[in-house]
Amino acid sequence: MRWNKISDAVIRRLPLYLRVLDDLAEESEAESISSQELGVRAGVGPALVRKDLAWFGEFGKQGVGYEIGFLRDELRKILNLDSKLPVALVGVGSLGSALTRYHVRRFEEDASFNLELVALFDNNLTKIGDSVEGIPVYGLEDIKHQVKEKGLKIVIVTVPAQSAQDVVNQFVDAGIQGILNFAPVKLKAPDTVHVVNTDVSLELQRLAYYVPSVSPN
Amino acid sequence: MRWNKISDAVIRRLPLYLRVLDDLAEESEAESISSQELGVRAGVGPALVRKDLAWFGEFGKQGVGYEIGFLRDELRKILNLDSKLPVALVGVGSLGSALTRYHVRRFEEDASFNLELVALFDNNLTKIGDSVEGIPVYGLEDIKHQVKEKGLKIVIVTVPAQSAQDVVNQFVDAGIQGILNFAPVKLKAPDTVHVVNTDVSLELQRLAYYVPSVSPN
Repeated sequence: MRWNKISDAVIRRLPLYLRVLDDLAEESEAESISSQELGVRAGVGPALVRKDLAWFGEFGKQGVGYEIGFLRDELRKILNLDSKLPVALVGVGSLGSALTRYHVRRFEEDASFNLELVALFDNNLTKIGDSVEGIPVYGLEDIKHQVKEKGLKIVIVTVPAQSAQDVVNQFVDAGIQGILNFAPVKLKAPDTVHVVNTDVSLELQRLAYYVPSVSPN
Repeated sequence: MRWNKISDAVIRRLPLYLRVLDDLAEESEAESISSQELGVRAGVGPALVRKDLAWFGEFGKQGVGYEIGFLRDELRKILNLDSKLPVALVGVGSLGSALTRYHVRRFEEDASFNLELVALFDNNLTKIGDSVEGIPVYGLEDIKHQVKEKGLKIVIVTVPAQSAQDVVNQFVDAGIQGILNFAPVKLKAPDTVHVVNTDVSLELQRLAYYVPSVSPN
């Protein structure tokens, strides 16, 4: 891992900047963008934009701003998205299938997205051997083999809470390094494995804080 | 809004603490918990646990820790989850339907969860009038009426990127105060409306940073 000391709060914003640059490259002829405009479009203050990017090099020029194509390429390299990264998903239930469809559409819309869902896993015998959106569904006993064969680095976990840790252990043993967890449970993983939790119910509870509770009518 | 100055980073952790307390209340007879143990279970350092909770009052006792039932009730009140909060979802495609099923299951498992999905919205005439998991699907022209009638405060947005802003404007006009956005687009909303973005592709791109890109085999 490079730039070990950079906080995850910074890393979290890089894909936002990248998306703004991708959109700009598509919709306009502009060659450069100011930190001000990049900030407005990403929803981040201009000083923070400059500070975030300065962690990785001197990308901007005084009075000119950032060269769009160059910064886009650099951000892709920093995020390991300069070549296709193969991704797996485990748990082909309704959420898993929906995310698979969502992801495949997202990928078709933007080929430079560079995250490609290439393998699905499930423990349901009626699903194994089948496919969703053309992506094959393997049994859990194939995890080790497929992770190696397909060079899988990241797995999206959409299994029920009670089986999540067991399934994750198998992926960690097989050498996976990143986990996007949708199961409503805190997963244990070695420090070398990065876990991002996306728990919809926790996000809703957080939103509830900002919503004064007045009863209807 | 109370406690205006408290950062969202603190608010984000409160549902985690609440989940730990809910689990504890179910699985053990323990009446109190130390900040140490609460921290380990929530994946947060004990000093931060104490600091976070101190924003809202003196909940802990030296040498005893936190009284589980009491802290649980207080956290519910802080998060506006002491009574049921009605939630809407707009965009009953594959992701929207999957989240509806996920949410209904989550709610059945834990009645004290207190976020209840009560109305779905879509612009597809073949879906309007139908229901998913017993929850009715309304047309977009019913947003204003339903938000008022059902006292809807929060809406989950799972429509395509290009229609997200337009749909959100209609909910904002109708008086919604919290938005959980799954559409891969930055939404504009007044300061009085709180928006939480959950973009799966951004999360994956963030994860990619932590995964050294070595080609397979």
